[in-house]
Amino acid sequence: MKIGMIGLGRMGGNMARRLMRDGHQIVAFDRDAGAVAKLVADGAEGASSLDEARGKLDSPAIWWVMLPAGEITQATIEQIAANAQPGDIVIDGGNSFYKDDIRRAKALREKQLHYVDVGTSGGVWGLERGYCMMIGGDKETVDLLDPIFRTLAPGIGTIPRTPERVQGEGEDDRAELGYIHAGPAGAGHFVKMIHNGIEYGLMQAYAEGFDILKGKSSEKLPEDERFDLNLTDIAEVWRRGSVISSWLLDLTAQALARDNALSTFSGRVADSGEGHWTIDAAMEEAVPANVLTAALFARYRSRVDHTFGDQVLSAMRFGFGGHVEMPQ
Amino acid sequence: MKIGMIGLGRMGGNMARRLMRDGHQIVAFDRDAGAVAKLVADGAEGASSLDEARGKLDSPAIWWVMLPAGEITQATIEQIAANAQPGDIVIDGGNSFYKDDIRRAKALREKQLHYVDVGTSGGVWGLERGYCMMIGGDKETVDLLDPIFRTLAPGIGTIPRTPERVQGEGEDDRAELGYIHAGPAGAGHFVKMIHNGIEYGLMQAYAEGFDILKGKSSEKLPEDERFDLNLTDIAEVWRRGSVISSWLLDLTAQALARDNALSTFSGRVADSGEGHWTIDAAMEEAVPANVLTAALFARYRSRVDHTFGDQVLSAMRFGFGGHVEMPQ
Amino acid sequence: MKIGMIGLGRMGGNMARRLMRDGHQIVAFDRDAGAVAKLVADGAEGASSLDEARGKLDSPAIWWVMLPAGEITQATIEQIAANAQPGDIVIDGGNSFYKDDIRRAKALREKQLHYVDVGTSGGVWGLERGYCMMIGGDKETVDLLDPIFRTLAPGIGTIPRTPERVQGEGEDDRAELGYIHAGPAGAGHFVKMIHNGIEYGLMQAYAEGFDILKGKSSEKLPEDERFDLNLTDIAEVWRRGSVISSWLLDLTAQALARDNALSTFSGRVADSGEGHWTIDAAMEEAVPANVLTAALFARYRSRVDHTFGDQVLSAMRFGFGGHVEMPQ
Amino acid sequence: MKIGMIGLGRMGGNMARRLMRDGHQIVAFDRDAGAVAKLVADGAEGASSLDEARGKLDSPAIWWVMLPAGEITQATIEQIAANAQPGDIVIDGGNSFYKDDIRRAKALREKQLHYVDVGTSGGVWGLERGYCMMIGGDKETVDLLDPIFRTLAPGIGTIPRTPERVQGEGEDDRAELGYIHAGPAGAGHFVKMIHNGIEYGLMQAYAEGFDILKGKSSEKLPEDERFDLNLTDIAEVWRRGSVISSWLLDLTAQALARDNALSTFSGRVADSGEGHWTIDAAMEEAVPANVLTAALFARYRSRVDHTFGDQVLSAMRFGFGGHVEMPQ
Repeated sequence: MKIGMIGLGRMGGNMARRLMRDGHQIVAFDRDAGAVAKLVADGAEGASSLDEARGKLDSPAIWWVMLPAGEITQATIEQIAANAQPGDIVIDGGNSFYKDDIRRAKALREKQLHYVDVGTSGGVWGLERGYCMMIGGDKETVDLLDPIFRTLAPGIGTIPRTPERVQGEGEDDRAELGYIHAGPAGAGHFVKMIHNGIEYGLMQAYAEGFDILKGKSSEKLPEDERFDLNLTDIAEVWRRGSVISSWLLDLTAQALARDNALSTFSGRVADSGEGHWTIDAAMEEAVPANVLTAALFARYRSRVDHTFGDQVLSAMRFGFGGHVEMPQ
Repeated sequence: MKIGMIGLGRMGGNMARRLMRDGHQIVAFDRDAGAVAKLVADGAEGASSLDEARGKLDSPAIWWVMLPAGEITQATIEQIAANAQPGDIVIDGGNSFYKDDIRRAKALREKQLHYVDVGTSGGVWGLERGYCMMIGGDKETVDLLDPIFRTLAPGIGTIPRTPERVQGEGEDDRAELGYIHAGPAGAGHFVKMIHNGIEYGLMQAYAEGFDILKGKSSEKLPEDERFDLNLTDIAEVWRRGSVISSWLLDLTAQALARDNALSTFSGRVADSGEGHWTIDAAMEEAVPANVLTAALFARYRSRVDHTFGDQVLSAMRFGFGGHVEMPQ
Repeated sequence: MKIGMIGLGRMGGNMARRLMRDGHQIVAFDRDAGAVAKLVADGAEGASSLDEARGKLDSPAIWWVMLPAGEITQATIEQIAANAQPGDIVIDGGNSFYKDDIRRAKALREKQLHYVDVGTSGGVWGLERGYCMMIGGDKETVDLLDPIFRTLAPGIGTIPRTPERVQGEGEDDRAELGYIHAGPAGAGHFVKMIHNGIEYGLMQAYAEGFDILKGKSSEKLPEDERFDLNLTDIAEVWRRGSVISSWLLDLTAQALARDNALSTFSGRVADSGEGHWTIDAAMEEAVPANVLTAALFARYRSRVDHTFGDQVLSAMRFGFGGHVEMPQ
Repeated sequence: MKIGMIGLGRMGGNMARRLMRDGHQIVAFDRDAGAVAKLVADGAEGASSLDEARGKLDSPAIWWVMLPAGEITQATIEQIAANAQPGDIVIDGGNSFYKDDIRRAKALREKQLHYVDVGTSGGVWGLERGYCMMIGGDKETVDLLDPIFRTLAPGIGTIPRTPERVQGEGEDDRAELGYIHAGPAGAGHFVKMIHNGIEYGLMQAYAEGFDILKGKSSEKLPEDERFDLNLTDIAEVWRRGSVISSWLLDLTAQALARDNALSTFSGRVADSGEGHWTIDAAMEEAVPANVLTAALFARYRSRVDHTFGDQVLSAMRFGFGGHVEMPQ
């Protein structure tokens, strides 16, 4: 199929490449003309504006917008919509908030345009490994785009099939290939958002575990209860037959193998919106989510040297344990 | 009554003074002869050793040990027990772990000695305000010591009586005076331990609230959603008619009134054993205690610049979002 | 002053009474004519519509809207605004979300109307004890309304003054009387929102502590480590000289004095919006708030018999510990 | 090698079988004679007592004790030690607390016996997949036992090697085969304990995520923000190329494929000691572990219908929001 790829950063550029390798045609646009030129060198048609890109697309036009969530995505989609013809399709492949998807899909529907949101996981590994995709939108449009998703997805590959899985009984056969049609517009990004919320929780579970392992050599402990553990070997051995093996553990084992003190990392940990939005969703549904929240808050805490709250604690302790005059 | 007060720090010294003011006699001992001399100046008999102190006490001897929990308390009690006569009474007024009380009471019982554990709250305010006491031990001994507890306790004072409270129906009348016989040996320190666990939770609730209030001026927020709030006034107003008024809030209001930036406090917050032991108790009973635990962990976190766990998070993020070569 | 009180539920009705007792005049309106009649019997002028109420007010009119947060408050304020004259003042005394206040104040300002948001704490005790108030709005309007706030507030009363508090140095003298001008529109409800977030945290800290005390009699524990503690007495004694004395503890002591098993309470605990919004605010500011969040989630959890998440855990445990066939 | 396998439950029996398949000899003992008979049918020598088993073993004897942690393991090891000859080796392959290992190793060392603790992960899958093992003990003994561990371990198999891993530079080559010598006695079970603590955290992260996904169809939500998500497909798609793929997710996908409502699971979730001990270790080291703790507490909470703490909350809310008389 012919796709207008807007945004040629690491994610957009690699997706375009994976699509072209499998025979799709790409019309490429980015504010950065150099990024366009690079993709043209790899076989894409270049465009120096959205208008020019539209001219090179078929009808209905298929746009894949791969930009940072927020204002720039919103503005780009509005600009595309302003010059679109009925039936055109806009795919937001970024990390938009799912309520923005719901709103946008409604706005585009009024112009007879189709909106599809695609949450993707796989990061920099996607070019080779394929992208895990969670898709929201109306059925006809998602079905029409199937060749695109099939190319981008990892496929069955070497991952064992789930034994009990029954095909064709209300399940989505595409799940085994690495993509699903999750529901109407917004559902794709919603599922991706929860994915990221879980990711934070998993990461923090490993982080706390390794922290306790490392702390076991502490001189605070009685001498005969101290161990000087080799974290690199522990991460490695857990990859092999243990209940907690995972891709995140594989990455941890790699990092520790390079440097078991992780000394190139300062430990100030960023968070993107999805962790925050996941907790919002939990609260809207009144679902307790202590682990996902604690994981998010650990990141907030990692980015400040101390909190004002800590000072309040100290001030109280001074108040009842110390040197204040008696109130009158 | 005549009491051997062992340990004349701020707590022990003030308790001795409050007892003497009400007509009790104190035999005072401390490793620090200066502390003994000071209390002698206030009316106590001094002693330069436990043996000498024993000689000045009646039979049965009443010992009040007011030392840091742990080895020194244990050693002192053992030494007292070694020279004791049947019927002598040892009161541990420090912050011992309640399982140590259970063990010690059993050991002393074999020598026909009585052991009483007293958890006290009130800190430096106790000399004037009185000490809130939670007492463990056998009934006869606790009853015998009642004049001592009555003197140390705050009494009804100006605190309104609980309207629905019925006297003499299985309730302990002494509660209104500020002390209770909580149960057998260990029960006093157990109740005090939970008291401190709750204290941590309360403190952290205020700390987080003030942290969010302070953060509301952050430039991260949209300009029309920022407020520059006066925390000093907020603490003060909440003392007056609000649901969250408390003594800890009074102390917070005082601290903020002195310096609304709390700039003399670095925010590295110590914890004593009770918070930790409270979580142990929760786990032994399989009681979920998310708030009390989070409060304890916030203190741990306040004392380190970053955690190794934070570095693990960063290493993973680098792994899936970045620059690592594809695994083979 | 003359005030149009809209909404004569327990809060609105009692506020009107407290105002009239101190010489203010009330024009009363409620959808429920019976509520109006009752307040007329207590000295108010009644009105059977907002229009009629407007006719009985001075210029500028002062409206106090005391309705449930959300649609009805919004609709009422819009209706008042539609018939208002420049300079009229609308006070929202309910529990509105502060971002709604910011939006409404802007909308009213365009019509030369003034909007003031008042967060109140004190519940059913306010008629006698006075209402703790946190006020948002422009300075002139808040100053103009001062006689109203002064009447509603508790005043200094018997609560000791904060010793270090310096008057007239950037602090708000009104704080000691039980009300503050917290900032522009929205600031009042924002501060009240955080107040409630803290309230949840404090309550949960006590709840967990009492839970552990109660569990100490569990047969799961070794026999010599069990205590059968009297929670009624413990709550009472902590009111007297301990670090954790508070109004919430007073209420707990009352409840336990009535029935130490709290058997009339099922333990399904509601939450209003403020707890949720407090966590939203924490996330917007990237402030870790583990305690306040855990307190909110405990309420969510209390209202369901089990979670789907619990079933997921069981399913996993079955998977790795049990009876599933080997994947192929 | 010749091994005395004590305890022929699912774990012990399967380990014995895996060892025999690879040429080792097993002397089998269990209180249950039927279990012995079954293993004899598979090629083991049977024994009807520990004494008889000792007679059939070489010198030094190698014992693998595979019994529930606690009294029975302790008693069995004591009995073995009582009849042991210098140089004999006792391996505890169960889930003992690591401080018990430290104590036992010291006691056995005094009799010139060797103690090795082996934490194993892999559950019922181990017979086919191999057992991930974390081993504590002195170097000579662990090296001597290497043929046993090599047989039980999964080996490299199909799991990709960690690219950056350098052999022979202070790392343990055995980690890639699925076992490590973690340190002195106790270190094996300590590492296994943390493994289980992490396991709880990972499981709870998935559980909360799926709970939020399921709740997204709730009628509490605005109609246009509800999604009716297919959890079975979501679990499946996340297995393929996403950041959160793991073995636990594989198991979840299997369970959902069998029954997407998980209706055979009630959601009352057990916990073994390791989760609890992990938090103990965190507290001893002063390491914040909010996620691991919240995961443990979620299990406690899942096993009760409500908590007394919830009732305390309700009682307080009644107190300040309702119908209590004013305190005097």
